[in-house]
Amino acid sequence: LESNTVRAAADEPIWGYQCVKERCERVLVHDAEGRARAVQALSVCKLTCGTSANLWPRPRHLHTSKTLDWVNYSSINVETRGDDGSDYRNHRGGSLLQQASELFREQQMRKATIKDGTPLVKTGGKTLEVTVSLRDPGRHQLTLNTDEGYELFVKIMSDGRINTTIIADNFFGARHALETLNQLIVLDDLEKQLRLPREVTIRDSPAFPYRGVLLDTSRNFVSVDAIKRTLDAMAASKLNTFHWHITDSHSFPFVSQSFPKFHLYGAYTPAEVYTPTEVVDVVAYGRVRGVRVLPELDAPAHVGEGWQWVGDNATVCVKAEPWQKYCVEPPCGQLNPTVDKVYDLLGGLYHDMLSLFKPDMFHMGGDEVNFNCWNNTDSIVEWMVKKNLSGRQEDDFRMVWDHFQKRAYEKLVEANHGHELPVVIWTSGLTAPGKVDRYLDPKKYIIQIWTKGDDPLIKELAEKKYRLIFSNYEALYFDCGFGAWVGEGNNWCSPYIGWQKVYDNDLKKLLRNLGVEPDQTSVLGAEATLWTEQADSHSVDGRLWPRAAAMAERLWSDPVTGWQAAEYRMVSHRERLVKLGVQADSLQPQWCHQNEGYCYLSHNIQGEH
Amino acid sequence: LESNTVRAAADEPIWGYQCVKERCERVLVHDAEGRARAVQALSVCKLTCGTSANLWPRPRHLHTSKTLDWVNYSSINVETRGDDGSDYRNHRGGSLLQQASELFREQQMRKATIKDGTPLVKTGGKTLEVTVSLRDPGRHQLTLNTDEGYELFVKIMSDGRINTTIIADNFFGARHALETLNQLIVLDDLEKQLRLPREVTIRDSPAFPYRGVLLDTSRNFVSVDAIKRTLDAMAASKLNTFHWHITDSHSFPFVSQSFPKFHLYGAYTPAEVYTPTEVVDVVAYGRVRGVRVLPELDAPAHVGEGWQWVGDNATVCVKAEPWQKYCVEPPCGQLNPTVDKVYDLLGGLYHDMLSLFKPDMFHMGGDEVNFNCWNNTDSIVEWMVKKNLSGRQEDDFRMVWDHFQKRAYEKLVEANHGHELPVVIWTSGLTAPGKVDRYLDPKKYIIQIWTKGDDPLIKELAEKKYRLIFSNYEALYFDCGFGAWVGEGNNWCSPYIGWQKVYDNDLKKLLRNLGVEPDQTSVLGAEATLWTEQADSHSVDGRLWPRAAAMAERLWSDPVTGWQAAEYRMVSHRERLVKLGVQADSLQPQWCHQNEGYCYLSHNIQGEH
Repeated sequence: LESNTVRAAADEPIWGYQCVKERCERVLVHDAEGRARAVQALSVCKLTCGTSANLWPRPRHLHTSKTLDWVNYSSINVETRGDDGSDYRNHRGGSLLQQASELFREQQMRKATIKDGTPLVKTGGKTLEVTVSLRDPGRHQLTLNTDEGYELFVKIMSDGRINTTIIADNFFGARHALETLNQLIVLDDLEKQLRLPREVTIRDSPAFPYRGVLLDTSRNFVSVDAIKRTLDAMAASKLNTFHWHITDSHSFPFVSQSFPKFHLYGAYTPAEVYTPTEVVDVVAYGRVRGVRVLPELDAPAHVGEGWQWVGDNATVCVKAEPWQKYCVEPPCGQLNPTVDKVYDLLGGLYHDMLSLFKPDMFHMGGDEVNFNCWNNTDSIVEWMVKKNLSGRQEDDFRMVWDHFQKRAYEKLVEANHGHELPVVIWTSGLTAPGKVDRYLDPKKYIIQIWTKGDDPLIKELAEKKYRLIFSNYEALYFDCGFGAWVGEGNNWCSPYIGWQKVYDNDLKKLLRNLGVEPDQTSVLGAEATLWTEQADSHSVDGRLWPRAAAMAERLWSDPVTGWQAAEYRMVSHRERLVKLGVQADSLQPQWCHQNEGYCYLSHNIQGEH
Repeated sequence: LESNTVRAAADEPIWGYQCVKERCERVLVHDAEGRARAVQALSVCKLTCGTSANLWPRPRHLHTSKTLDWVNYSSINVETRGDDGSDYRNHRGGSLLQQASELFREQQMRKATIKDGTPLVKTGGKTLEVTVSLRDPGRHQLTLNTDEGYELFVKIMSDGRINTTIIADNFFGARHALETLNQLIVLDDLEKQLRLPREVTIRDSPAFPYRGVLLDTSRNFVSVDAIKRTLDAMAASKLNTFHWHITDSHSFPFVSQSFPKFHLYGAYTPAEVYTPTEVVDVVAYGRVRGVRVLPELDAPAHVGEGWQWVGDNATVCVKAEPWQKYCVEPPCGQLNPTVDKVYDLLGGLYHDMLSLFKPDMFHMGGDEVNFNCWNNTDSIVEWMVKKNLSGRQEDDFRMVWDHFQKRAYEKLVEANHGHELPVVIWTSGLTAPGKVDRYLDPKKYIIQIWTKGDDPLIKELAEKKYRLIFSNYEALYFDCGFGAWVGEGNNWCSPYIGWQKVYDNDLKKLLRNLGVEPDQTSVLGAEATLWTEQADSHSVDGRLWPRAAAMAERLWSDPVTGWQAAEYRMVSHRERLVKLGVQADSLQPQWCHQNEGYCYLSHNIQGEH
């Protein structure tokens, strides 16, 4: 009896939705006189109300019809042959496309069925044919120059099939097109169909080539499953760089094949490691989702655990006390730049990382060297005296750091078989105002900015033609706002950063505010960071999502409008992430999702589709 | 080859732990000369270092030996016969004990094996005999007077078995004893054994009888699975009241058998409901874990969705705009206290809730009535004129509210077959300074305080002999600190409340600061609240835990020391919750857990076991 009552509700819906003034309004299916109203499923209303088709990130140019077609989820064909008849499966990029197509089919299957395979939809619908045409089908690696644009066309054929055409330069654009198409196919729980706009014309490409998420797996270990969930959500949001801050002072979970003692000494527990197989798996998992996995080996600071077996005074100040004198948080630890063995070990680690990650660029870290630590190390001070750096002033220590950076860079290039590759480094001592070009060649180094977005240094870096990645902490540090973990109160960069602030972190506006003309700069994009002093596998999803998706639209679409215009779609996208299995934080009561336009603070800011 | 490398690490541990000055220090298993050090597993060090045996909450009196015995996880017998030979299974309380014993055995099984059943421990160890002796084996319901104390003794028998004796008044104390015993049995990953202190003497009881967690399932729906995880974590922390704020203006997920239209109209979707079977299941799940499930039917404000079918002007201001005039957050909605049908419906809902929850107390809500809403409703104003409440001043509206509360209370007692039961009500208009005793009888009403802990009203309530539950928002509102959900910036009660502040929310100190002698008051305890405007099934765990556990120790042990002395155990308890399957937030880098005493801010504040 009980389950019948509940089921009756499902069979005879009481509520439906209508698009009124570009908002989906919840209305009773029957009016006061018992007459049936013309209502839609919420998903259908969201898809057809307004002009953005509920897509996230919003494509740059789109037109979608309000009329929908019924897609037969068990009859979806993705054709990966080109116009010339060549089969992309023979290309490395083509094999990626095969996998992405399979993912696309699985996504539709998941929408149409519940976990045990029971269909949520009626039998029937139209066959969906997807034809992918690539200009460069052999491209299998994302670089900073990769064209990620795509065109997507949907039309109905005379024989009743739905024809979808995807045109892109390469796999990475085509994958984004499949993601867009995926978002355009919705489950209609009133009609019990998967439905797709009958006509679609989309021309789309990202505003910025670098759209990243940093995850720190040293302060706390993060499981491979949690990393894969992160990659799933990134793919759904068209982010393209997973920056893996894999080691730090706290632990060394990376399994080095050259020097296996690093993880034996440095992992929190023997199980909390990333084996070569797992790294290769993560890299492949990312690639098929359009995401490069960018390794960071942070040095010469932010080291410690894992180096205990080395000896030879290779590390200094490890666990030094009181820590406040030697580093920014416990435990302290820095490399000793005067010890040759340090560079041999780095070379081996670079070799291991390059061979597993096969990255198109590399992150060398390079932040927060504590000069007092080096200044308190006799062997370093003696070495400085020999090198005539005896003033023991900041500039002397910067020269030591510069020495380190140059030798480490040589080791990296050597490990890359003599080929240079773009290197990222954090704003820090080497990027000090007025001095950065003394140490870092703008042709070689990309600078990742983690100071505030109004730091005048940004202007200097832009004018000196550095390529820039923004992680300005007041908008993109997703660890901010929780309790303190040393002492009490709240953590250093509190308060918590709401998605609205992330969304409105407009890079071009930041530049203009500093007096820099955006068109004259090499801003590659931005990156949300999750430092994991207070997060691990159990909380990574909620810390990153949906806030990283807010950044994703900023970087992809770079809208002239602010968060208010994106709010309804943001909340929808969060639901999308949850359905992917990502434990994304809830932004609002579900009531707001079902009653668009009622959850506002002042009347002049309202969302739109 | 790769997996061998990793496994080698597991077989030949490099790190171990030593207890030095009541701190567990991570040390190399072999010293510089290759000699083996005497090291312990981390779990064993935490259990034996210091004087609290890593227990959470700390028992009031305990002694545990540093010597440990090896427990055979597959040979655990819990004897539930009393001294007189009577079998507790014949008692209702006894059947609870059977279930709790089974849970205890499963917990040891889970510690000793990995998911697929592969043992993490060696074969062997001693049989563990647990004998439970109850003075009142028939008690199966927790009340405000239930004695939750217990005594727990462990000693080794001449035949080699481990004998554990639990003495308690009733099931609820015995269950806490089993939880304590569970925490005393640890997996030693060096010896590959489950181990327990050879001698244990614990005498324990809670400082406060009411130790609650509120979960709001109206702003967002929370799955039964997430509710059960909450109950698991509550049991592990000896909390005893799950306050289920099951309805509000936003949605009505409770399936009423008397009036099934409430959930048909009021649930977010047909699947997002709590059926009678599910409610009964949750209540039973809580009871066997020592947790009462306390239902709240909030009225006369905080209603809306679900009442649409009623008509008769039963609700007013539902979705009224602009909402700021009629309520504190969208959507608005209040009951119309002048409509008889309102009371009939409330009576039916009370009946349904009482029969499903079988609660020993009831929460009637009663907060945030907006007088302007009533003042803008013609029928209410007309009714007031008839009743000579025509001044339309605050006191007039309070009389209307009082009228509502008295009639609703009558309906509740009627639904409870004429028996009164303790009723909780929020601080609000009816508890206004100088007026509360005009409306609320301290013999009938318990007041739940949600203003700040320094509100002078608390003194008045204490002096007027109300029984009090503290949910002072600056310490116990766990939704605080996230982004705003109407408008931008941070939400109203920001910043985020760290566990340290929760721990130090000392009720007796709050009273003394207000000039009230704690011994002269009826403070029942406190309750952490999770209002779910910005949380749902996917984030409930991390919002509540481990912070609610910080409150749990405050309420159970009421220590004279602050959070600093509890820090190491708090971090351990968080790990315990994670092993239970609860996605508790991480408080610190795992490094701090493994290097006690190094993650501090100033040197004079240090943890202890």
